[in-house]
Amino acid sequence: MRASGLIKRSGGLSAVRGLRAAGVACGLKANGRPDLALVVADHPATLGATFTLNLVQAAPVQLSRRRARGGRFSAIVLNSGNANACTGRQGLHDAEAMAAAVAKAVQVPEAHVFVASTGVIGRRLPMAQVQAGIAEAARRLSPAGGSSAARAIMTTDTVKKESAVAFTVGRQQVTVGGMAKGSGMIAPHMATMLAVLATDAQVAARPLQQVLKRAVEASFNRITVDGDTSTNDMVLCFATGAAGAPPLRVGTPAFRRFSLAVERVCRELATMMVRDGEGVTKLVELRVAGARNDAEARRAAETVANSPLVKTTLYGEDMNWGRIMAALGRAGIHFHPDAVDIGVDDIPVVRRGLGLGARAEAAANRRLKRREFMLGVHLHAGTGESWLLTADLTEAYVKINAGYRS
Amino acid sequence: MRASGLIKRSGGLSAVRGLRAAGVACGLKANGRPDLALVVADHPATLGATFTLNLVQAAPVQLSRRRARGGRFSAIVLNSGNANACTGRQGLHDAEAMAAAVAKAVQVPEAHVFVASTGVIGRRLPMAQVQAGIAEAARRLSPAGGSSAARAIMTTDTVKKESAVAFTVGRQQVTVGGMAKGSGMIAPHMATMLAVLATDAQVAARPLQQVLKRAVEASFNRITVDGDTSTNDMVLCFATGAAGAPPLRVGTPAFRRFSLAVERVCRELATMMVRDGEGVTKLVELRVAGARNDAEARRAAETVANSPLVKTTLYGEDMNWGRIMAALGRAGIHFHPDAVDIGVDDIPVVRRGLGLGARAEAAANRRLKRREFMLGVHLHAGTGESWLLTADLTEAYVKINAGYRS
Repeated sequence: MRASGLIKRSGGLSAVRGLRAAGVACGLKANGRPDLALVVADHPATLGATFTLNLVQAAPVQLSRRRARGGRFSAIVLNSGNANACTGRQGLHDAEAMAAAVAKAVQVPEAHVFVASTGVIGRRLPMAQVQAGIAEAARRLSPAGGSSAARAIMTTDTVKKESAVAFTVGRQQVTVGGMAKGSGMIAPHMATMLAVLATDAQVAARPLQQVLKRAVEASFNRITVDGDTSTNDMVLCFATGAAGAPPLRVGTPAFRRFSLAVERVCRELATMMVRDGEGVTKLVELRVAGARNDAEARRAAETVANSPLVKTTLYGEDMNWGRIMAALGRAGIHFHPDAVDIGVDDIPVVRRGLGLGARAEAAANRRLKRREFMLGVHLHAGTGESWLLTADLTEAYVKINAGYRS
Repeated sequence: MRASGLIKRSGGLSAVRGLRAAGVACGLKANGRPDLALVVADHPATLGATFTLNLVQAAPVQLSRRRARGGRFSAIVLNSGNANACTGRQGLHDAEAMAAAVAKAVQVPEAHVFVASTGVIGRRLPMAQVQAGIAEAARRLSPAGGSSAARAIMTTDTVKKESAVAFTVGRQQVTVGGMAKGSGMIAPHMATMLAVLATDAQVAARPLQQVLKRAVEASFNRITVDGDTSTNDMVLCFATGAAGAPPLRVGTPAFRRFSLAVERVCRELATMMVRDGEGVTKLVELRVAGARNDAEARRAAETVANSPLVKTTLYGEDMNWGRIMAALGRAGIHFHPDAVDIGVDDIPVVRRGLGLGARAEAAANRRLKRREFMLGVHLHAGTGESWLLTADLTEAYVKINAGYRS
């Protein structure tokens, strides 16, 4: 941490100056838990944003994607409990009405208000409750409200997800902080996940967008719980400039630190998502090396990471490496099966396509009993590399997802 | 059944004249259950065969694939409990030794003996036990031994899988019968599945191969339990000619009936596999219509069928159709989300991208309580169609696969 010049801070959005936040319960969740969050910049801020690549895009994604082009941010309202997806023209009207209500309540231009939703697909939002929630959240806005907002965007998450780091620009300390929600339907290229980051650095919209895009590529786009992606994913980062530090200019050391800081926060939030993935008991860093190129390495990693048979063998703490070989074999990439090495952390289990025997497997199985470990595959077919964060598949995942709406 | 001229017969391989079979326990399975099967043609037979497309291919697949080119069949030995995959040169020697032992025991040319294995990957076969098993199976060969053979190839299967149909050629009744094993690691393009079919028709190797290939495409390549495919899959069909009917010639009505019969047996065995899939409680025929082309329809069907979120919603008997929309949206195909129709059997649930409300969902949910139903998707983007047989994802699947080797 020291080497990068980044200092870990507690909290998430509330570690960042120049914003207020709140989370309230407005009745979208049957259990009465908080389900609506509001985050407002004290002054107009710059914005970067990335959105789901799913062809089916929820109304709030359509609205926010369009507005993000302007690069300006004043506020975002987020709700859990209902995704406002597959709701047609009515859904778009509802998302617009949410933004309009926020604009009125906190007195900002409607075009700079963003909307995010997560929850069940295909049901209309109960707008009276949402409107009441927005009014109440606006009354409760506070610089210390970040955690409360983070709690209000949880769905099947079991813990709220916040992260923040700071670094210095000249003599000023600048902070990047954020919140996110997971936790199923998680796969590369945005999932049922929302993340809002903020920084009190001063940075223009275009470089902010580039930094965020790169950070998302190295974090949220590297995690997979179940291979499913969603209609509602978005990651926003807005810059308030409230730290009073000089503007960050591309190519300077300060800009590089900023870039690292955004990536760090994204990675911490992404890791929290996998760790808190539905029913997850193992956090696995899967590394594929020696593919013909990076794209084939990525494809191999995705196939292995999403194989139900591999995921259940990790859950079972049993190094049934044949399932990894079988998954590699159907990944649609080229390699020689009798060249493959496989290992867990620093323990080799397969060398040149052959198992190293019962003792090696026993040693690997001891490692699989840990909550976190690295699974390494070397294909010896080239110099392509990739990595993903993944998790096991458990009975609890099935239970959660078989009963989600009931 | 009548329309096609096919008559359902009981049993599997033993319904076919001109072969003998046996199943024995030789100690490959820790629980002492039957684990070695032998099927022998009374006289040299013709052969068609298809094999896994997985890049990682087990030793018996390598051996049998090579020998299948000759189009001649005398015998096949199959074992469960050990896949003889990822076992290197030793594994190939062991597969060859199995074939040699069979050739010697039943006095047939070694080049016409085939080998199939299924079970755990990466462990060497205990050859002394296998050799003893082959000797015992050879002694027990009987025209009525088909069921016993079908039992010996089971792994996590809970029921043996046999099917047979008959039709007439001139005045002779001709039969096609077969056996198979499932049941996890099932996905299109051959899975952890073995199937051996036989017919007492007289048919040359080349048309037999064509008939089998088409039948496999419309059956075993249409089923998916968990999206994983295996290193060991193969489907063989041999023709003994023992019915005494005239040779089948391509293009004749008799040949078409034969083709239908092979397809029928393959489909019945494939359906049994899904129904007996690991932890499966639902058998779902997924139909996708209105894609831009058949390939996109197939891709959509595969993405929906293998989505853990869709599979758990089927298990939960809750028509959470948003998950189907989300899966379609990430399938990498083109369509307009607001044109999509979705239904269960004859009950529409989504029309033009919008849910038809609580009553429609309640009606669909009642249908989901059945053990078998059809899930239909219409994309309204073209005339492409495809279908798959799939299943739900249950806690039992996880349990079986987390503890498979232990």
